[in-house]
Parts: sequence; structure tokens; C-alpha cells
Amino acid sequence: MTAKLLSAKEIEDLPQILPEWNVSKTCLVRQWRFSNFVEAFGFISQIALLAESMNHHPEFKNVYNRVDIELTTHDLGGISEKDVKLAVSINALKQE
Amino acid sequence: MTAKLLSAKEIEDLPQILPEWNVSKTCLVRQWRFSNFVEAFGFISQIALLAESMNHHPEFKNVYNRVDIELTTHDLGGISEKDVKLAVSINALKQE
Amino acid sequence: MTAKLLSAKEIEDLPQILPEWNVSKTCLVRQWRFSNFVEAFGFISQIALLAESMNHHPEFKNVYNRVDIELTTHDLGGISEKDVKLAVSINALKQE
Amino acid sequence: MTAKLLSAKEIEDLPQILPEWNVSKTCLVRQWRFSNFVEAFGFISQIALLAESMNHHPEFKNVYNRVDIELTTHDLGGISEKDVKLAVSINALKQE
Repeated sequence: MTAKLLSAKEIEDLPQILPEWNVSKTCLVRQWRFSNFVEAFGFISQIALLAESMNHHPEFKNVYNRVDIELTTHDLGGISEKDVKLAVSINALKQE
Repeated sequence: MTAKLLSAKEIEDLPQILPEWNVSKTCLVRQWRFSNFVEAFGFISQIALLAESMNHHPEFKNVYNRVDIELTTHDLGGISEKDVKLAVSINALKQE
Repeated sequence: MTAKLLSAKEIEDLPQILPEWNVSKTCLVRQWRFSNFVEAFGFISQIALLAESMNHHPEFKNVYNRVDIELTTHDLGGISEKDVKLAVSINALKQE
Repeated sequence: MTAKLLSAKEIEDLPQILPEWNVSKTCLVRQWRFSNFVEAFGFISQIALLAESMNHHPEFKNVYNRVDIELTTHDLGGISEKDVKLAVSINALKQE
């Protein structure tokens, strides 16, 4: 399934749809802090399942209780509908 | 670290400490139902970390949104302090 | 996506396609023994991703280094093409 | 359990013990490339278990088939025995 890059207007509107995410021209970024590694990794595992299921994989960084997720569509060099869809699914997970 | 089997009296008192678990002479059993597999697996991943960290591993069964955990101390043939400690840690996880 | 139950003839032929699996009329079963829980859970995590991605989830049991997988299509009450596909994907994972 | 920073001499000798890792004064770094995300995440899950079990957590980055691990002992501001021990355990995992 091919995805389309968002238009400049759509990117401008993203903060209303995804207020928890930082939006740049090329990616969506969000950070989490959990109580400990066990909670952080439970969250990472859920994101892994969502990502594989959508065949669209985030860049993530973790150390102990911190999880940083960056979403971009590498093939297209920017933010596409796939990134928005994955961000919405991640937002729907139970989180601290 | 060696563990000790609980006494008959201690097993009798378990339902007060662990009301969510079914107690038999040889094991502690608890079931969970989540909204979907993503949530169930996030929970399983957290239990996996707790178990490895304590070097005490539950028997678990999963299909889709269901997770069944059975705790016993195989070496001793019954419920030991390790099982109680792991059950308490599992109870402390965020759950549905 | 709807799946179809295998015919009696197709079930009869399964042991040639999936020699590692035990075949009954209603399910496919396979067991693994790993060196330790870390390896077993790495394997379980991979199966979790495959399953969510196919939206077809196995029943699995684990205790320490043992992993037991049972594949069936609950909606149809037997073995379908989905089970065969998932079994083939699991076979393709690196395993002990 | 308190850990000790490695001495300058011990850090100098690290490449012989851990030839697969890049060594700086403050951290150990290693990268992996897998066939796909499923394999990469199976590997990450195993490292998560090792890390929680040692109560010493790496910084890791992942996108699709790539896994980057950085080991350092934040409390001490450099490489300690804990980092070496975790690196050795990671090396012992089955890898691509």
C-alpha cells in the first residue's frame, strides 16, 4: 500500500489532531516517561505489534523509563498518512 | 536463593493477601481478559521481565485477549514465598 | 478476510508440508525447548508480531524454556489456511 | 550493588575482550542489522530481559531491522563492570 505525504496545509493542522506530538516538516515526535523499565517495555511491546501490523515502523529510543518515538515515512522523506495513523493508534494505548 | 514452601496455615491465609488469585495446595492461578492481543501481550511482556528478574517463571497461557497465569515452585512441589512475591508484583502492574 | 477450513484430503497431506507439527482434525501443535527463558521469550515475541500482523492468534503456553503452540481457527472450528500460513511463518523463524 | 568504573588501563584492554563493540571513555556501542523487524524485536526482547535481570539498562535505538545499543553507567559517568557484564551477555545471545 502506497502512502501519500501530507500537504503543507495538513501538516499545519496536525497539532489539532495530535496535540501530544511535536510536528516538524519531516517527522512526528513524542516522549514518554514511565515509572520504571517494566512499564516502559510493556509500552514498547505494544507499539512493536502495532507497527508490524501496519508494516510501518517508528524510530524509537529507550533508556530505563524513557521512550522516545519518531515517526516519518522514509521512502517519501516526510510525514505521510501512515505516520498519522500510527500516532493515533499509539495515542489509543493505555499510557502513564 | 532457596525458597520455602508455605505452611498449611500460610496457604489458608493467602486469599486475604491475594484475593484476586485462586489458591490450591500446589499453585496460584489468575486469569485476565484484555481488550485485544496488543494489550494482552504488553502485559505478558511485563510479567516476563518480572519473572526473569526474580529468576522465577510462571506457567502462562495466552490466546488473543486472554492471559492465564499459574504460579508454583516446581522444585518444591508447591507454593513457596517466591510465588507469593511474584503474584504481588504482577498485581502491582497496571491492568485492565 | 475469511478463511476456509482445510478439506479432509488437505489435512491428510499436512504432515508432508509441516512435518514438525502434530496434526489433528481441529488443530496444529508444536513444542519447542530452548536453553533458557530469555531465548524462549525472544521466540514468543517474534510469534506475537507474526500473529498480530496476520490477525490470527495462536494459543501458546510457556513455562521457563518450553513453548507450546496450538493453531486453530476458532470461528470455523478447525484448521484453516490461516493456520497453515502462520505455521509456515513460525517455521521460518530462527529456532533452537 | 555498587559498580566501579573501569580504570584507563582496563578500558584500553576492552577491545580484546569485546572486539565487536566500539569503546569510548564513556560508553560501549554496538550495532546490529537483522533481516526484518520481527528478528530485530526478538533480539530487543532478549536484551530487555537481561537488562532488567541485571538491573542495568542500555540505551537502545531501533528502526525496522536496525538495533543500536549503547552501554554506560550513568551514575558513575562512564564504563563500569556492569557494562562489560551486560555486553558479554548480549554477545552470548544468538544473533544474525
